[in-house]
Amino acid sequence: MNKILVLGAGRSATSLIDYLIQHAELNHWQLTVADADLALANAKTKNNPVAKAIRFSLEDTIHLISLIKNHDVVVSLMPAQLHQPIAEICLSERKHLFTASYVSPAMQQLHEKVKQADLLFMNECGLDPGIDHMTAMELMDDIKSEGGKIISFESFTGGLIAPETDPDNPWRYKFTWNPRNVVMAGLGTAKFLEDNQLKYVPHQQLFTHTTKVKVEGIGLLDGYPNRDSLQYKSIYGLDDVSTMIRGTLRFEGYCQAWNVLVQLGVCDESFEIENLNMLSPETFMQAYLPAGEGSAQEKITKLFPKQSEGVRLLEWSGFFKTQKFKMEKATPAKVVEWILQDKWQLQPNDKDLIVMWHRFKYKLNNTEKVIEASLVVKGENAEKTAMADTVGLPLAIAVSLLMQNKIKARGVVIPIDKSIYQPILHELKSLGIEMKTKTIA
Amino acid sequence: MNKILVLGAGRSATSLIDYLIQHAELNHWQLTVADADLALANAKTKNNPVAKAIRFSLEDTIHLISLIKNHDVVVSLMPAQLHQPIAEICLSERKHLFTASYVSPAMQQLHEKVKQADLLFMNECGLDPGIDHMTAMELMDDIKSEGGKIISFESFTGGLIAPETDPDNPWRYKFTWNPRNVVMAGLGTAKFLEDNQLKYVPHQQLFTHTTKVKVEGIGLLDGYPNRDSLQYKSIYGLDDVSTMIRGTLRFEGYCQAWNVLVQLGVCDESFEIENLNMLSPETFMQAYLPAGEGSAQEKITKLFPKQSEGVRLLEWSGFFKTQKFKMEKATPAKVVEWILQDKWQLQPNDKDLIVMWHRFKYKLNNTEKVIEASLVVKGENAEKTAMADTVGLPLAIAVSLLMQNKIKARGVVIPIDKSIYQPILHELKSLGIEMKTKTIA
Repeated sequence: MNKILVLGAGRSATSLIDYLIQHAELNHWQLTVADADLALANAKTKNNPVAKAIRFSLEDTIHLISLIKNHDVVVSLMPAQLHQPIAEICLSERKHLFTASYVSPAMQQLHEKVKQADLLFMNECGLDPGIDHMTAMELMDDIKSEGGKIISFESFTGGLIAPETDPDNPWRYKFTWNPRNVVMAGLGTAKFLEDNQLKYVPHQQLFTHTTKVKVEGIGLLDGYPNRDSLQYKSIYGLDDVSTMIRGTLRFEGYCQAWNVLVQLGVCDESFEIENLNMLSPETFMQAYLPAGEGSAQEKITKLFPKQSEGVRLLEWSGFFKTQKFKMEKATPAKVVEWILQDKWQLQPNDKDLIVMWHRFKYKLNNTEKVIEASLVVKGENAEKTAMADTVGLPLAIAVSLLMQNKIKARGVVIPIDKSIYQPILHELKSLGIEMKTKTIA
Repeated sequence: MNKILVLGAGRSATSLIDYLIQHAELNHWQLTVADADLALANAKTKNNPVAKAIRFSLEDTIHLISLIKNHDVVVSLMPAQLHQPIAEICLSERKHLFTASYVSPAMQQLHEKVKQADLLFMNECGLDPGIDHMTAMELMDDIKSEGGKIISFESFTGGLIAPETDPDNPWRYKFTWNPRNVVMAGLGTAKFLEDNQLKYVPHQQLFTHTTKVKVEGIGLLDGYPNRDSLQYKSIYGLDDVSTMIRGTLRFEGYCQAWNVLVQLGVCDESFEIENLNMLSPETFMQAYLPAGEGSAQEKITKLFPKQSEGVRLLEWSGFFKTQKFKMEKATPAKVVEWILQDKWQLQPNDKDLIVMWHRFKYKLNNTEKVIEASLVVKGENAEKTAMADTVGLPLAIAVSLLMQNKIKARGVVIPIDKSIYQPILHELKSLGIEMKTKTIA
């Protein structure tokens, strides 16, 4: 087993490819990096003799099958909704698969077959999901081994920008991963447990449903609930917990501004606006506001009297500009992405910032204890981002461990077992990625 | 051409089947009524020698093809999303098709092929869409023939309940058509034109975006925008109009109450709630509300201080009851339907009420004129509803006209041409369904 195929050479692939090249040289592995954009793949493999760059398209199934057939392990960095056909081919060609994405119901259904084929399909092995699972499980396993009984679990992660980057940007945010996912964040209904009460938070409530999170060295952040936290109750072995929430972190102001966009309903992919080149951000926003006199900004200020800070962020981003769009047609969500892109595009020397925070409450000898843990990782520049490190390195380490026969688990797996998270976290620590733990009570 | 196939024998089929049976007797036609529920089909054909009841299932494609093959004209009263496979078979078997549903993009794509096959696929030929198109076109053709230039078109329709029915029901509403469509109403983004301004109204804004409509003999109603009104600008030949809106009518209070449900986000089909039999309406609503002390009603009253009338309607419907659900699992939307069903189910002697209202503004000799038109139809009971009459009769009349070779149009068509709407409206008038027109200015 010595051939690794990486599908996708985008922003989050850099650190993964660098790590695998380094270990390929030591271990005599061969790496192939495939992307629709050959130049991008070449930029990542840098003519290294152990790494080959090739062009590939998901539509060319025959080529994809022959590619997978010629490798032992496949890493899919494609958008999450594209993993399934790759997984099906990996199963029929009996190859291992690694992704940093959530296990979809379709992926989960492959579990028994994957296991019977003696394969590992490792998912949720990036940052969030990924490092969050691993660090939480390590801390919880420690608490349990002391005899503690966990009663509350809260975990929030965010991909932000460092204080020195773009200091006038009031969002303290830029696009460090798929912009579409940022614009459509929170679609669907978040589910969690709070003080033994089941909580459903749909898109229209999400950005008002924030929790204050204080992280040392960073300050106060807002956390909003993310996806289905309930399913992790049994996955984490926390069936008796009374609070269970996973969420996303943003600097203060972001959620207020985003809530205005969600309330207006502009984050919508259900239709295309025609003749967009006759509209401007101002007239686009006006379409979502009551008819009559007044600018979009005046109308929004009147509709959201308590969210003046949010309105200021929208103004800064150009949502009230009167220059016409240079697009013929697009969905409203794409228009929002286009407006934001102007100031949210990562510039070459920008440094991104990853913040992760867990809080556990548990009972030990009839006393309630509280532990907080936090991880802060800063990027170097737009190429070497903290996002690429924290998403790509755990995945690369997991691949490397499997190649060395150090992971025995088989089937559709996420990294919550000690035998998996321990060596990954150990290696991450040696690379400077480590949580700081603090006993609060 | 003498064989008619009606697919679906539900509530809105009654008047259509009665009308077709009556005309089949006169014209020596044969009618087949097919439904998944044979007893239901039998109840509608009543052993009449010209009408046969049979069982059918959309899944049994082979049976469906042979059924369609043996008839000349197919009427689909199936849910709108199920028309397409029927349309495909009608095209390949060269049979005419009638529906009361909106033309989907997939249906529209068949237009040229249907026309080349010398077939008529008549859609939007019920109440709304249907009678609204026909009565509007008749009035607008009259205005234009006088030399008037239409500058504003507003049209609203609602299926309500008559004053004498269930007088304590504060919604003045019951389920008179597909309950699922009532619960999911307004998903997607409504689009219209108001004073030359493009307006997009997404689900979360829809029920606050109401227009007051006064209908003689009925009183004040609330109208909310419905689907894409913009596309009817060119279909109606109103390219220069400055206001163009089609919408839905409800009695006052309804939209306020429904807005609370939409803001909470409970009209959601994206996931299933497990262990529903451990929840009650109260705990279901609590899941969408902030954690902490207080009943769901108290929390909603606090969150929506200006919507106390809406909260009263929800209370009347049982949204705060504490009896456990008798379901194992269901989507939130299904839970809402289940709660409403208790008091919104049509009782045998209930009378429903159809209200349609148009307002046209136009210029004639440099003077601005205003015309309003309204239609009020009351049902007899839960069997003979105004909804069944106004949806079924225009469709039945259109079928009858085609059988008599009195409709020449071919292709995918909606009833906006004078040659089609005139004979249909004439026949509807003889059946007591007629708009009253009033010059306002």
